[in-house]
Amino acid sequence: MSIAVEMQELANRAREASRIVAGLSSGVKNELLQQMAVCLETNVEVLQQANALDLQAGRAKGMAAAMLDRLELSDPVIESMAEGLREVAALPDPVGEVTGMWVRPNGIRVGRQRIPLGVIGIVYESRPNVTADAAGLCLKSGNAVILRGGSEALHSNRAIGAVLQQAIAEMDLPAGILQVVATSDRSAVTELLKLEEQIDLIIPRGGEGLIRFVSENSRIPVIKHYKGVCHTYVDAAADFSMAEKICLNEKVQRPGVCNALETLLVHRDAAPVFLPQIATAMTKAGVELRGCETACQLVPEMIPATEEDWPAEYLDLILAVKVVADFEEARDHINRYGSLHTETIVTCDYALSQRFLREINSSVVMVNASSRFSDGGQLGLGAEIGISTTKLHSFGPMGLEDLTTRKFIVLGDGQIRE
Amino acid sequence: MSIAVEMQELANRAREASRIVAGLSSGVKNELLQQMAVCLETNVEVLQQANALDLQAGRAKGMAAAMLDRLELSDPVIESMAEGLREVAALPDPVGEVTGMWVRPNGIRVGRQRIPLGVIGIVYESRPNVTADAAGLCLKSGNAVILRGGSEALHSNRAIGAVLQQAIAEMDLPAGILQVVATSDRSAVTELLKLEEQIDLIIPRGGEGLIRFVSENSRIPVIKHYKGVCHTYVDAAADFSMAEKICLNEKVQRPGVCNALETLLVHRDAAPVFLPQIATAMTKAGVELRGCETACQLVPEMIPATEEDWPAEYLDLILAVKVVADFEEARDHINRYGSLHTETIVTCDYALSQRFLREINSSVVMVNASSRFSDGGQLGLGAEIGISTTKLHSFGPMGLEDLTTRKFIVLGDGQIRE
Repeated sequence: MSIAVEMQELANRAREASRIVAGLSSGVKNELLQQMAVCLETNVEVLQQANALDLQAGRAKGMAAAMLDRLELSDPVIESMAEGLREVAALPDPVGEVTGMWVRPNGIRVGRQRIPLGVIGIVYESRPNVTADAAGLCLKSGNAVILRGGSEALHSNRAIGAVLQQAIAEMDLPAGILQVVATSDRSAVTELLKLEEQIDLIIPRGGEGLIRFVSENSRIPVIKHYKGVCHTYVDAAADFSMAEKICLNEKVQRPGVCNALETLLVHRDAAPVFLPQIATAMTKAGVELRGCETACQLVPEMIPATEEDWPAEYLDLILAVKVVADFEEARDHINRYGSLHTETIVTCDYALSQRFLREINSSVVMVNASSRFSDGGQLGLGAEIGISTTKLHSFGPMGLEDLTTRKFIVLGDGQIRE
Repeated sequence: MSIAVEMQELANRAREASRIVAGLSSGVKNELLQQMAVCLETNVEVLQQANALDLQAGRAKGMAAAMLDRLELSDPVIESMAEGLREVAALPDPVGEVTGMWVRPNGIRVGRQRIPLGVIGIVYESRPNVTADAAGLCLKSGNAVILRGGSEALHSNRAIGAVLQQAIAEMDLPAGILQVVATSDRSAVTELLKLEEQIDLIIPRGGEGLIRFVSENSRIPVIKHYKGVCHTYVDAAADFSMAEKICLNEKVQRPGVCNALETLLVHRDAAPVFLPQIATAMTKAGVELRGCETACQLVPEMIPATEEDWPAEYLDLILAVKVVADFEEARDHINRYGSLHTETIVTCDYALSQRFLREINSSVVMVNASSRFSDGGQLGLGAEIGISTTKLHSFGPMGLEDLTTRKFIVLGDGQIRE
């Protein structure tokens, strides 16, 4: 059977099964997720045997230690997958919620009710735990899911899929609600991306290359997250000790993630005091500073920044620093170089905090808090399927609700249109 | 200048201007729309002179009378464009609304606030009044708009654009907030559809050919509305007099629109009484009936339906009729042949009405009301920019709110992530 036909059949099974999972009660969906967690815990050995094949192949190919680490299904990783499923089971179910209901002059009542999207395709790289995490979120929100991980984790992903299928079978549900694409053939992704009649949404999780490939080749809507070039603007009226604490947390706590700080903007009246202070703290924490001309004058230890530094997502202990004349210059810099991810202002000025919230249209805009809170769990969405930095459908961290849409319901008693 | 460069510059102007329009208060936006209405009314002659050129060219090309009618900017059409702008001015502004705000255990407050999408491109056919209607909705929701009408209305659209620009100039706003593509070159559309960095959303309005062309060639998200194959299911427990009134209204009141009834499903216990009754009424109203085998047995005047009738969007005085064994068969028929537009049940059975609402996941699902209410104005959205029959971003009739997205706002007092 050709890959094209295989993917077509797989997607047809998902479409068929999506009608079943869309109609399940929260109770049944929660029981399924609980059962899936138990199945993971009672199959640790099976999972680790499959995982060993991937690890072995990775080592043979000379995979970097960090990559091997991400690939490994250690006991704690499996336990946290099970725990994650239980946490999603405990979250409120968005499906069925009526968000607003109103009455028209002719007496019909009109409401908007949340329903699942249908079939969701997840295309991801290396970390096999995504298989269980994404499956839990898609199923809880009433969607069928197709999972396509990287070839380097193929055995692990297949094993996780098989183990989760035990729970699905125990609950007498159709296997099509959760399918792992069991081939490493690249064309499987290309074929899936054509199936707009069967699949409602594609979420790519991985590097910029994967995301660009998926979005350029897909006829299905794609939720994109290209990069996180996060800015923090320290205003003249900031509490400098608070600003130092926040900026350090944003840059240093976990520099390799998309909500880490990449460019620090400092008001010119704050710069003479705040720049030497933050430079000392950052340098002590091992951060390399790349400053604009004014910043370098105030802190001669800084490396002069070039034009390439402003749009850079370092994902490393490097920070670009720019002194700005006022809020407008900071805003224009963010508009020009930002990635619509997360921007923060540190200020004690009420009016300015409100202007920042209003005039900066990134997906997450913060006052006096660390950009590291910009993720689904920290913001209180319960869990996160991804972050969207494009505005359609969802913008910012995405939880269960973002895996649903709303239909209109109309309740009449015989009304017709005159 | 090449078309590609021209479109790029136009889109850059829109992107630049979108920051201005996003920041305007409701008061200023309403004044702009009011001013635009006045400009239309004081330029009737200018508009009709330009329109005459299009009408003349249309007649010379042998355009059908109905098409010429749609193309004409008569006094009442211009007045209704002005009135439409005033109605949109009077609607509540969705921008700035905070939909939910909660507090996290660490004290940060998290909310979701509505913001404009940015730049919206409208690609449409023939009716020049869309130019003013769509512009009003996009501007009121804080977006810059690029309008690309059909070549047969080029002079009219250009003239409307120029007249609306007078209002924009009077308010000292940048011209880039509203631009009419002033060339009939087809490649202008193809070029626009590539500009994903500048344009946030494309809404095609027109026939299925236009919509397919746009969605297959666009790298920008597209809101699609392919067709409306609406079903009404008359249950055994229906009030047949209500059912007759509703079905007639759905089929006859305006058969050429997407929310008209195309397939009538009748429970087999209702069929012996209801089918002859509705057949008499429909035939009297000039409707041709195409029935399944059972329907034809009950009403021998019906034409036997073929497989082509079930997915057909007639947009005409033709109705497909099928007798079904139960709700499940009706539901499966709708799932198989429906277009996710609008489905209606007529029943007095409470439990069944709830099942219909729950198990039919079309964009509009109705109990005991005419499908003709399935439009933005009738449902109470105030106005309609289009109808989406795909689930991402919006599903169903789209009003002002659907031209916005939500960002997260976070209010802290120095919190960092531990």
